[in-house]
Amino acid sequence: MRRKLIVVSNRGPVTFQADGSERRSSGGLATALRSLLRYHDVTWIASATSEEDRARAGTTLDQTAEDGSPYRLHLIAHDEQAYDWYYNVVANPMLWFIQHSLWELAYTPKVDRAFHTAWRDGYAAVNAGFAASVLTELERDPDTAVFFHDYHLYLAPRLVRDERPDTTLMHFVHVPWPQPDYWSVLPRAIRSAIHDGLVANDVIGFHTDRWRRNFIFSTRELLGEDVTQKTVTAPISVEPAEFDALAESDAVLTAERDIVARRPEKLVVRVDRTDPSKNIVRGFRAFELYLDAHPDMRRRVGMLALLDPSRQDIPEYAEYLAAIERETRRVNDRFQENGWMPIELQIDDNFTMVVAAYKQFDVLLVNAIFDGMNLVAKEAPLVNTRDGAVVLSENTGAHAELGEWALNVNPFDVAGQAEAIHEALSLDLGERRRRLEAIQEYVRGHDVSRWIELQLAALDRVSATARR
Amino acid sequence: MRRKLIVVSNRGPVTFQADGSERRSSGGLATALRSLLRYHDVTWIASATSEEDRARAGTTLDQTAEDGSPYRLHLIAHDEQAYDWYYNVVANPMLWFIQHSLWELAYTPKVDRAFHTAWRDGYAAVNAGFAASVLTELERDPDTAVFFHDYHLYLAPRLVRDERPDTTLMHFVHVPWPQPDYWSVLPRAIRSAIHDGLVANDVIGFHTDRWRRNFIFSTRELLGEDVTQKTVTAPISVEPAEFDALAESDAVLTAERDIVARRPEKLVVRVDRTDPSKNIVRGFRAFELYLDAHPDMRRRVGMLALLDPSRQDIPEYAEYLAAIERETRRVNDRFQENGWMPIELQIDDNFTMVVAAYKQFDVLLVNAIFDGMNLVAKEAPLVNTRDGAVVLSENTGAHAELGEWALNVNPFDVAGQAEAIHEALSLDLGERRRRLEAIQEYVRGHDVSRWIELQLAALDRVSATARR
Repeated sequence: MRRKLIVVSNRGPVTFQADGSERRSSGGLATALRSLLRYHDVTWIASATSEEDRARAGTTLDQTAEDGSPYRLHLIAHDEQAYDWYYNVVANPMLWFIQHSLWELAYTPKVDRAFHTAWRDGYAAVNAGFAASVLTELERDPDTAVFFHDYHLYLAPRLVRDERPDTTLMHFVHVPWPQPDYWSVLPRAIRSAIHDGLVANDVIGFHTDRWRRNFIFSTRELLGEDVTQKTVTAPISVEPAEFDALAESDAVLTAERDIVARRPEKLVVRVDRTDPSKNIVRGFRAFELYLDAHPDMRRRVGMLALLDPSRQDIPEYAEYLAAIERETRRVNDRFQENGWMPIELQIDDNFTMVVAAYKQFDVLLVNAIFDGMNLVAKEAPLVNTRDGAVVLSENTGAHAELGEWALNVNPFDVAGQAEAIHEALSLDLGERRRRLEAIQEYVRGHDVSRWIELQLAALDRVSATARR
Repeated sequence: MRRKLIVVSNRGPVTFQADGSERRSSGGLATALRSLLRYHDVTWIASATSEEDRARAGTTLDQTAEDGSPYRLHLIAHDEQAYDWYYNVVANPMLWFIQHSLWELAYTPKVDRAFHTAWRDGYAAVNAGFAASVLTELERDPDTAVFFHDYHLYLAPRLVRDERPDTTLMHFVHVPWPQPDYWSVLPRAIRSAIHDGLVANDVIGFHTDRWRRNFIFSTRELLGEDVTQKTVTAPISVEPAEFDALAESDAVLTAERDIVARRPEKLVVRVDRTDPSKNIVRGFRAFELYLDAHPDMRRRVGMLALLDPSRQDIPEYAEYLAAIERETRRVNDRFQENGWMPIELQIDDNFTMVVAAYKQFDVLLVNAIFDGMNLVAKEAPLVNTRDGAVVLSENTGAHAELGEWALNVNPFDVAGQAEAIHEALSLDLGERRRRLEAIQEYVRGHDVSRWIELQLAALDRVSATARR
């Protein structure tokens, strides 16, 4: 059934370039949402992020997706100071760091006057801008459901709800939901406003039961409200056909030949943004412990780390990238010999190389501290050609689905991660193949269209309840 | 009713000195437990901490408390390497930092091979030593309840229970209990062993419903067990008569005259160990913001910080003390004029001076990040003579009891703390007096003997249930 949807997310599906062309947004969220365009009648509201975007902001553009699907795009040109506060002070790092439990509470954050200003004149102001655009689009067509995305937009639903009591509102939270004590990092008025904003939706979605239960728990603690009936678990996933095609593309085959030409006997791969939640530094330390314990494997094994530099305008992220580089240098200085380096670090946004590495791993290391889902754990096994094993953090959303076929690790236990790398490299071929095929079968049976169906089914339950 | 109790805590009520004399242990826990000696028949098991203690270890000593009450003391001489791992690697910092949510999870802790060793050959070994001593004392008198204390002894109860299925075991946890996601900092086997050890008790006590509910929650998540019926909330408190006497002692009166002679018009007091959970650095920043916003109060107000240096063998604590000193210097450098310094820092263990400062505060600042109880918030108002106001962190156990009469603050919100200092100094006399007297009345009505009664009543309920 084709539906009318207003999709609201900070980043839109495309950015307009200086030459007038469109550049596709990367990242799992943009990709997953783009698949909505094929089956539904979508108006997409997002922040203008380039000069060309700003020139087109405030009107509704008729667009065509790559596969020919029509959609409408409504870009918002926020005040630049407000956007900086919203994005670089509140959303990342504050909310991101809270939702991934990353603050060093003895010292950070200091909720200072500057933060109160950034909250009010940045985050709240930009959310009001989003709400105003939603209301404009609802005036054009009132009979449309609204689908908010992620931690940038916690306040907008309440603002829309106040004006439109009967519109169906949905929100998907793509990040972990921490338990209520960790929300105490924010003053009560602010943490309450976040929960109140979300509760204004008819349906609130999470990747796993774990994050969903935490949300139910913290809403009960903070607002005294039981929102169980409003919540849904819908694990995000990938489009397998997209990866099948990519894996056979000329660009990936060329990159893969390059990896094959210089790869060691055994290849451990990690693919991440350079985000403190991804636990890259501990991963290198674990690899060092593995090389310590298995000197016979030196020169025979290497770790290829493909890291997309992330949010470098924010000091915490710049510091983390520096720590990654220092730790790589330390481990390589210690073990390198005759041209062999234990760790090959590529700081680059190069998805072609990523897919080539997906095909070539013997061990995929996903050891995130906390992670809403982690799509790498779904993408990489899909196209792997070496019966590779997956080492997976118990604090990822993916663990709830794939844990039984992975070697599961505690993200803080570097000794345990070193052992898991050893176990992964010691599994016999039959066992590795059985596990890999089980993951592939699972992901093909639970692809991104199922993610969307689960949410739309929840929407229908709400509408049915409302009608009764 | 006089009962037979074996009290088990890491630190005993006294330490033997080189000259054979006994030195009383300081701190709220030792003081609170000493009051047990008056009314009950107590055998106390603790770690030997001095050379003279070690010389007396392994036997049961007949002792007399200061008030003449007889008790028995059983000191344990642990292996020194094991004790160092148990105390300086596992209990503090690892467990302390987890229970107060202090780790910077992107970087710390690394659960390395050294930690696994410290857990097995340190924490578990020392707990086994405690359990063996408990079993020895139970052989002497099997009809005795055992009362374990705090985060040093999580494994001992299970070891005793395995040998003595019918003995009544009780445990009191003096620190906050974090919610289950934060326990994921420890590998599953370790966090499960901690919960399993506690669950071996018949009664497990906490200072507030908040920590107790968190324990029930994390036990359900980790062990799948509902321990609600085993838990009790019993807020620790003080002996008001002790503070009444202290307040009028010559030593305190002398110290108080010294404070009066040089105090500014308004005095903000904080009293803490130099522990990262105490939030001292943010407190100074809040005071700076207050001075920024109220230039008329410069030279008229001062902050007196009496800080007991704590656990300086552990790097995280040494670093925190350095940060305290840096922040003091920074704020003082900025505002000092004509001999006036905004912050007076005394790094010292001087309880006489503490009680004198309790009498003289206009504002008491307790802004702990997380704190099981915080006895300063109960002690200081008892003896205050200036109708002083209490600024109190919402994350302290004391907040559950005293919050309605305090100015409550979020510990991360330095802007909010600056405002609270201003509000506290702006309250009219009647309001300040009303609040202070309410706190005094509450604490006198809920003193340390009530803490003990609540626990013994829970013990009786368990015994009654067992008999039925």
